Amino acid sequence: MPMPVKAEPAAGKLTIDDSFSVTSTGVADPRLNAAINRFVLRLARQTGIPILPGRPQAGRVALTIDCATRGAEFPTLGEDESYTLDVAPEGARLKSASVAGAMHGLATFTQLVGPSADGGFQAAAIHIEDAPRFPWRGLMLDSSRHWMPVEVVKRNLDAMADVKLNVFHWHLSDDQGFRVESRRYPKLHMEGSDGLYYAQADIQDVVAYARDRGIRVVPEFDIPGHTQSWLAGYPELATNPGPYTIGRTWGIYFPVMDPTKEELYTFLDGFFAEIAPLFPDPYFHIGGDEVKEDQWKASASVQAFMRAHQVKDEHALQAYFNQRVQKLLEKNHKVMVGWDEILHPDLPMNIVVQSWRGQKSVAEAAAKGYRGILSWGYYLDHLSPTSFHYNVDPLGDDGVKKLTPEQTAGILGGEACMWAEYVNAETVDSRIWPRAAAIAERFWSPRSTSDPDSMYARMEAVSRVLEWSGVRHRSNYAPMLDRLAGGRPAEPLRVLADAFEAQGLGVRAHAQKYTSMVPLNRFVDAVRPESELVRSMELAAKRMNAADAALLRSQFSKWAENDARFQALAQDNGLPAELKPLSKDLSALGAAGLRMLDYIAQNQVAPADFVAEQTRELARMQRPAAEVGYAAARPVRLLFEKLKK
Amino acid sequence: MPMPVKAEPAAGKLTIDDSFSVTSTGVADPRLNAAINRFVLRLARQTGIPILPGRPQAGRVALTIDCATRGAEFPTLGEDESYTLDVAPEGARLKSASVAGAMHGLATFTQLVGPSADGGFQAAAIHIEDAPRFPWRGLMLDSSRHWMPVEVVKRNLDAMADVKLNVFHWHLSDDQGFRVESRRYPKLHMEGSDGLYYAQADIQDVVAYARDRGIRVVPEFDIPGHTQSWLAGYPELATNPGPYTIGRTWGIYFPVMDPTKEELYTFLDGFFAEIAPLFPDPYFHIGGDEVKEDQWKASASVQAFMRAHQVKDEHALQAYFNQRVQKLLEKNHKVMVGWDEILHPDLPMNIVVQSWRGQKSVAEAAAKGYRGILSWGYYLDHLSPTSFHYNVDPLGDDGVKKLTPEQTAGILGGEACMWAEYVNAETVDSRIWPRAAAIAERFWSPRSTSDPDSMYARMEAVSRVLEWSGVRHRSNYAPMLDRLAGGRPAEPLRVLADAFEAQGLGVRAHAQKYTSMVPLNRFVDAVRPESELVRSMELAAKRMNAADAALLRSQFSKWAENDARFQALAQDNGLPAELKPLSKDLSALGAAGLRMLDYIAQNQVAPADFVAEQTRELARMQRPAAEVGYAAARPVRLLFEKLKK
Repeated sequence: MPMPVKAEPAAGKLTIDDSFSVTSTGVADPRLNAAINRFVLRLARQTGIPILPGRPQAGRVALTIDCATRGAEFPTLGEDESYTLDVAPEGARLKSASVAGAMHGLATFTQLVGPSADGGFQAAAIHIEDAPRFPWRGLMLDSSRHWMPVEVVKRNLDAMADVKLNVFHWHLSDDQGFRVESRRYPKLHMEGSDGLYYAQADIQDVVAYARDRGIRVVPEFDIPGHTQSWLAGYPELATNPGPYTIGRTWGIYFPVMDPTKEELYTFLDGFFAEIAPLFPDPYFHIGGDEVKEDQWKASASVQAFMRAHQVKDEHALQAYFNQRVQKLLEKNHKVMVGWDEILHPDLPMNIVVQSWRGQKSVAEAAAKGYRGILSWGYYLDHLSPTSFHYNVDPLGDDGVKKLTPEQTAGILGGEACMWAEYVNAETVDSRIWPRAAAIAERFWSPRSTSDPDSMYARMEAVSRVLEWSGVRHRSNYAPMLDRLAGGRPAEPLRVLADAFEAQGLGVRAHAQKYTSMVPLNRFVDAVRPESELVRSMELAAKRMNAADAALLRSQFSKWAENDARFQALAQDNGLPAELKPLSKDLSALGAAGLRMLDYIAQNQVAPADFVAEQTRELARMQRPAAEVGYAAARPVRLLFEKLKK
Repeated sequence: MPMPVKAEPAAGKLTIDDSFSVTSTGVADPRLNAAINRFVLRLARQTGIPILPGRPQAGRVALTIDCATRGAEFPTLGEDESYTLDVAPEGARLKSASVAGAMHGLATFTQLVGPSADGGFQAAAIHIEDAPRFPWRGLMLDSSRHWMPVEVVKRNLDAMADVKLNVFHWHLSDDQGFRVESRRYPKLHMEGSDGLYYAQADIQDVVAYARDRGIRVVPEFDIPGHTQSWLAGYPELATNPGPYTIGRTWGIYFPVMDPTKEELYTFLDGFFAEIAPLFPDPYFHIGGDEVKEDQWKASASVQAFMRAHQVKDEHALQAYFNQRVQKLLEKNHKVMVGWDEILHPDLPMNIVVQSWRGQKSVAEAAAKGYRGILSWGYYLDHLSPTSFHYNVDPLGDDGVKKLTPEQTAGILGGEACMWAEYVNAETVDSRIWPRAAAIAERFWSPRSTSDPDSMYARMEAVSRVLEWSGVRHRSNYAPMLDRLAGGRPAEPLRVLADAFEAQGLGVRAHAQKYTSMVPLNRFVDAVRPESELVRSMELAAKRMNAADAALLRSQFSKWAENDARFQALAQDNGLPAELKPLSKDLSALGAAGLRMLDYIAQNQVAPADFVAEQTRELARMQRPAAEVGYAAARPVRLLFEKLKK
């Protein structure tokens, strides 16, 4: 995952053992050498085989890489990322036009490796020809609303490389935090970050780390709205006088920069001159979304400026601001990227529009000749089912049919977005992975690769492969449950957690008053967005052979028995107290499932009162409780449908 | 854990929330400040509460630290490590004579924190007075036989600090690897390490990291035996001419330095002059164990030297060598430490003898006026039950009764030893932790703290606390099972793994031919040395109230059902193939346990053939298979005993 364009299995297998070594016969390139070294270490980690790079080798070359060109110093939009990979029993051969392509081929190889029948590891023989469908395949990470330390960023870059994502869109400022050290304007990070910011050396470190993995870094500094953290240090940039402090609540804020003040552009000129060189990529994101017009409307000086300059409304005022900003960026050799709202006829054609509003809006931008990337439908913080994201295509809007091929090519790809209201450094990996792998496939693989069952099966496998990249989407699960269990054995909590699914922003925003100071240490934070266990039970309930029935029976029994143990665990511990009714519900679901299995096995008609009760209960469990969804109800519902037939 | 000398619970609790802050009223010290900062971050990690050090605080001081003196620049043997800690609802107060004591108090505080009834976290009110029983409380880590990267060392230092261990004994060279960069003799690390060695900057980094945590670093360079990795680069130091390569097999090697060559001492003089300054602690370990005399006996020149200098035997020759080495160390202001074998009347009284041979030998050394530390009984690589280690006391030998108080004080403490034949960077944490916490308690707490049930209960709790120090003894379990499962859901493997216990060196050394190139990625490497699940079942089988019977029934059913699923998982995958008979055995144990529960519940006499079969089967399962022990048989055995009565 992503599925290659062409993959033809062949006969035999290549053995992976401690004699594994790689030779590069093409262009000599330090970045490629580093990638090969990482690949070998990764293979060692993934298989547990001690492949020591420093050990004198017997001479078997298992993988030969032929990379034609070095390419640009930094990953570049639109570069040739194709590769071919042939795995055969006597060795594997990877060919690519560029270092980026070679790295993609290595990532593919990583996913071919699995245990063999003889107790070792192997890569099955195969012929692969592969290239991406879209050149812009991104992940946006919000480091503002919750702080994301460098190590979190780095491990996610590693995982991105695993699934061939090539743009790291770094949301570095918002109302709740300004996260970059500015030497010219030190009050930005001093007053705007609670001391949690990236030093300039950190930025350089991350950019170099991303470059080594073929990933472009596009920074976002969101202006003129979403700027309360800037205004904490520099209230003079604001429309209203302030004072301001770092935002700690969620939602759209009123404070906004004053685009009518010439000092603002002087400030931004200095800011870009300092910050732009930290990011070698030519694209620079200025946000531009969700600007509240209230302060502009209420300001006499802003209104006077608008009249004086014949600015017809506040949207036009923002366009004026964007034009000014665009010129400043141009001075620094940057191309402006922004959210939907920046689109305006006064802006030059080379800007890139990122659409959070819908597939339609990216198609419309393309029709006007702009380039666009799609993010609507890829909001990871909504914790939608992966199948929903997977079904959203950057070219999915009907309007695309009317585009010229050139205009269609202006739809560069898309980005999965990880907004950070409800995630922190501990939980963010489990909200990104493995689901972003399916979105990565949407950006890379042919549009015809779209079967959700195949996607889920492969995503579960790739979830395990991603463990070895360093992301903690799986490994942070148990410690979080241990914390909730307060030192007691967490098994009853795990049984519960495996049966529920975390809800996203839509539910959480209305569940209680959240701020950046509310701990994300609850059940909903530990629980995964989608339950692998429940998916396997749904498949079993649909198929219902003898093994399936046995599996369901065993799992339902476990649920039925679990409540007594859970209640003991939750004694005197307030953290899991909210789960007491859910645990009862799970046990009731288990008991109901067992009865349904009996009725089905014995071909009996279920009693009317049982049917009535289950109809009511299963309907009730359509709605989340404690900010988690009753995944466990789904397989029971499937049986119930069978029963009612 | 370790249990404090005096702990008196008081009324009420101190709330831990995001306003938590610490003030230091005593001596100003950067090391203390760093420790406080780490403590606050740790508290945030452990609870999931966003306690931001950089956020302007409302002013509540939850913990006041009064530390009287800064102490020496580096942790020092015998410094005052005592502290008192008072936790009360209005705040906590920590008093100590030294920074080391303050850090111990913070570690204790960490363990007092748990969930409260209202959904937050708290520390229960308590009065603690505490000080260690022994001044030398160590953990030895072998970085030679398998390579241990710096991050592995660091996270283990963090865990050591959690349980108040204060000596990191770093085994840096052995036949299988020389792990330190030597600029003067670069062939040591170039020819002796497969490229896996600590740069001098790494060493300095680790030493500083340890110092910050109150931990002394005592390096060990094992000479004159265990030196094949030295001889790979410098064969001229050897008794026999060589050539030599890095050792890859386990066991005692024949190659040994030639103590009769004057060039050897020139070499060592240069070596110590370069290496000794990297380690500020005055103690320096020269190993000295397991010297094979064969090469000395066979060498005409060595024998001629012995005759010429009236060296009466090979043990005396090693003593001659040690005397020479001791003088070189003295020149570098180092006190010599070595294993049992260095003890010889010709050596000065200030040396320290580390005993791997037994409690008796440390008592004997003390009787002769030497100082000693005990390691016999604390060999973690044996994977003995923790209760065994816990029961071994440094003053446990009868000979101690005859010592003067001064001689007794010469028994400085002990060290847990993690030899690395059968562990690597991935598995080592789970072999050290949580078991070393019980050994740490033996070194710290009063000898009367000795109840194994209490120890096990507290160790299981501390195992979870240690998660937040960064060691991966728990979190590496699931990925290793995932690897074994080859991408399939690992649950049936987890059921199996929870029911078995890994065997140590004693079993593994005879199970198959191991070398440093054999992957440690098998079931035995993933499985833990002691099963928490089985312990809880043993307790249940002993108590046997209604809830206990239900728990056992549920677990036995799970085992009974598991084999079918396990066999499906193991299809076409050679890695878990060796477990197929074990899985059948586990299911049979489950079925037998269920029958026993029925007989007991119904007060029936079990049929003779069943008794005969179980007698035979349970006896068979006394012996390990696939290098793991049948932990699951223990609770069944307990029921069987009940049944036979």
